[in-house]
Amino acid sequence: MPYVNIKITNEGATAEQKAELISGVTNLLQKILGKNPQTTVVVIEEVPTDNWGIGGESITTRRRAGK
Amino acid sequence: MPYVNIKITNEGATAEQKAELISGVTNLLQKILGKNPQTTVVVIEEVPTDNWGIGGESITTRRRAGK
Amino acid sequence: MPYVNIKITNEGATAEQKAELISGVTNLLQKILGKNPQTTVVVIEEVPTDNWGIGGESITTRRRAGK
Amino acid sequence: MPYVNIKITNEGATAEQKAELISGVTNLLQKILGKNPQTTVVVIEEVPTDNWGIGGESITTRRRAGK
Amino acid sequence: MPYVNIKITNEGATAEQKAELISGVTNLLQKILGKNPQTTVVVIEEVPTDNWGIGGESITTRRRAGK
Amino acid sequence: MPYVNIKITNEGATAEQKAELISGVTNLLQKILGKNPQTTVVVIEEVPTDNWGIGGESITTRRRAGK
Repeated sequence: MPYVNIKITNEGATAEQKAELISGVTNLLQKILGKNPQTTVVVIEEVPTDNWGIGGESITTRRRAGK
Repeated sequence: MPYVNIKITNEGATAEQKAELISGVTNLLQKILGKNPQTTVVVIEEVPTDNWGIGGESITTRRRAGK
Repeated sequence: MPYVNIKITNEGATAEQKAELISGVTNLLQKILGKNPQTTVVVIEEVPTDNWGIGGESITTRRRAGK
Repeated sequence: MPYVNIKITNEGATAEQKAELISGVTNLLQKILGKNPQTTVVVIEEVPTDNWGIGGESITTRRRAGK
Repeated sequence: MPYVNIKITNEGATAEQKAELISGVTNLLQKILGKNPQTTVVVIEEVPTDNWGIGGESITTRRRAGK
Repeated sequence: MPYVNIKITNEGATAEQKAELISGVTNLLQKILGKNPQTTVVVIEEVPTDNWGIGGESITTRRRAGK
């Protein structure tokens, strides 16, 4: 019954990659904590780079600066 | 003063349904816990079916399989 | 398959009140949006009044001021 | 290493305003709690006014009513 | 730079299991999406069984009923 | 009407520091985006160091290693 929320920047993750992530995280929770995969929920949120900051700067700014 | 976050898949909830949900949840919190509706915040997030997983599969995949 | 997160201050909600909230919100999502209750997840988080702010002040401060 | 999630309605915040918010919140956490800005993450989410409720009504309804 | 929030019921996950979860999820994000582990943040939240509902009932009630 | 959620490790932030954070973030949202402080909600969550990971390791492990 776990709930997992994954936030990433919206830089082109494909449906296949997201499916792999959903299945991988669900497996981990079963393997490590014995959680039932049938009620494990995974929600992926893709965030524009203007809306994500680290080190006090947006990812848009960091990408421009080559960071 | 409660804060409620509702995540659903983006499969066509109408503005009317969302308004009904906002008002219904706000009423419940007042009725059950005596919370002031004036400061009760409800935020609904609609998530693409590729980005929502349960049982280790995305909702897109489950819809295709008729689950 | 919705996921609902309810945050309230930790001011003595009982297990019965929380059970009523879980069942009430799950019913609303079924009635308004046709969501399957079997996969509707509700998580309630209780937050200390020092850690909750509105109007620029903590709830602890507001309670002291009789707000 | 703090994580900050800011939710606002999607009513036209510019990239410049969002950058200012990211830098302002990161500075506050450094000044008040001594947190390392290099690992402070800020994520801004912009929510449609139909999906945001306060006082039991959506923001769309409140805007129409001049509230 | 992803941010992952994992919510589970507080039923005795050990520090070792949580460390394994943190490292496993961080590896998945690197392997599948090429995300930098140095800025991948994982936050685990443990929720009392009274505060977690599925199928309209709290986990406390479901455990008592042997579900 | 913004909602801000701040997650930090539970390493002794005082009520005064948390009050300063609530007031500082509320002011920023008013100054930068013109948001009404009366309906700005700030929720601070303090997370055990075993439950917070960065770089694939828990903060507990990193503190022990002097990182």
